[in-house]
Amino acid sequence: MAQNDSVSEFLETAVEAAKKAGEIIREGFYQTKHVEHKGQVDLVTETDKACEALIFNHLKQQYPSHKLIGEETTAAYGATELTDEPTWIVDPLDGTTNFVHGFPFVCISIGLTIGKVPTVGVVYNPIMDELFTGIHGKGAFLNGKPIKVSSQSELVKSLLATEAGTKRDKSTVDATTGKINSLLFKVRSLRMSGSCALNLCGIACGRIDLFYETGYGGPWDVAGGAVIVKEAGGLVYDPSGKDFDITSQRVAASNPLLKDAFVEVLQQSE
Amino acid sequence: MAQNDSVSEFLETAVEAAKKAGEIIREGFYQTKHVEHKGQVDLVTETDKACEALIFNHLKQQYPSHKLIGEETTAAYGATELTDEPTWIVDPLDGTTNFVHGFPFVCISIGLTIGKVPTVGVVYNPIMDELFTGIHGKGAFLNGKPIKVSSQSELVKSLLATEAGTKRDKSTVDATTGKINSLLFKVRSLRMSGSCALNLCGIACGRIDLFYETGYGGPWDVAGGAVIVKEAGGLVYDPSGKDFDITSQRVAASNPLLKDAFVEVLQQSE
Repeated sequence: MAQNDSVSEFLETAVEAAKKAGEIIREGFYQTKHVEHKGQVDLVTETDKACEALIFNHLKQQYPSHKLIGEETTAAYGATELTDEPTWIVDPLDGTTNFVHGFPFVCISIGLTIGKVPTVGVVYNPIMDELFTGIHGKGAFLNGKPIKVSSQSELVKSLLATEAGTKRDKSTVDATTGKINSLLFKVRSLRMSGSCALNLCGIACGRIDLFYETGYGGPWDVAGGAVIVKEAGGLVYDPSGKDFDITSQRVAASNPLLKDAFVEVLQQSE
Repeated sequence: MAQNDSVSEFLETAVEAAKKAGEIIREGFYQTKHVEHKGQVDLVTETDKACEALIFNHLKQQYPSHKLIGEETTAAYGATELTDEPTWIVDPLDGTTNFVHGFPFVCISIGLTIGKVPTVGVVYNPIMDELFTGIHGKGAFLNGKPIKVSSQSELVKSLLATEAGTKRDKSTVDATTGKINSLLFKVRSLRMSGSCALNLCGIACGRIDLFYETGYGGPWDVAGGAVIVKEAGGLVYDPSGKDFDITSQRVAASNPLLKDAFVEVLQQSE
């Protein structure tokens, strides 16, 4: 089988897994506001685990030799080192707070790295039925239609996305709001929608122009979206402007026209 | 015709108008990222004006004696005083920044006051095809299904929504981020999605637990949503805890369980 064919097949398998997991998430999503008997935390944990098991089983069945890294498994067994082997990096449910509250930005994120290069990305929002896909060198798509990053070149006309994260110690919160304060003078407006993977896809389809987040959960939040942004003509980088490191819990993304100006204001706001 | 029948008919007419305007917004929404020849600002203005004209014509035809207040008309001719007459208060396109960027939180908001009491509310997001409706004393609905506010009683488990607004002078931005800083220690997380009317509907259907905004455009941002929140079992009030004044450009909303605690932290963060 040619390399391209197998990569297309990898994507197809990931999409199948994401769609199946999407059914579980959709079911839980419409239950969450009425959970009484077992509590919302249990429902999240159960949905997260059920989706990760489903996705892992689906991938293992097709590709027994591939490595698997997942949020739930890592939480239970500790981090798995990223090697050159084909490695699937899975967030079975990104946007868990949204899931609990019924806010419609939740997704499954699946990324495949080969030789540590992010090669396939699938991000599926089962509530809005939006499937973002990307294959290294083959473009990015939303529900099968090609997408590209915005053509915006001015910060002052740019829509910025970031997140408040989950840490609530004083120095983290002060740093978060200090940065927002400084950025609000430079950009058009700010969106916070609660899913790192969907923020990356927002960059990819031009809904937002600028995104940064630090201190998110792990590589599973960005592995799928990073391929999609790049294939849509965007850049994924460290907020310092250095190369993106998938294991660093630091990410920024934009189109190429905005990168330098964005990095400059991010640095000023440190 | 009995009073209830005519109010139901008012709602039906408003829904018809919102759906028609929704078609225009939907068309513009998918164009916005590719606007080259005339500029995005023109497209917004044209869409806004076309939608307001369409909605006003539809309402006038059915109810020639009713008063009309609209964002576009007010911008052009100055404020119209709210009287005891049946008065339609219309935002033809709430979330204009989202419209420009293709971020899917945009809506038409239509409210009817009778004797200054908000009596009918219609908020329609044509991108996500979500129609929120409410009639004073008759409940609130999302696409025809009854909705209610969340049952959350603890701030620390609550999802908060607010907006960065459009003013970028230092004292406004400092006040905005200072308040966010102080609130982040008290609530679970923060969402900013760019539409005041849809934030109110988010409270009504329990997707978010807490919302406040000051300095938004005018009564058209809140006239429709306020009815929907109340009919979903929620409260709409001034961020100080005092009665809501539809002309004040200050709004807070939550379920009844959270009001006192929310007002307290809002006051502390002044």
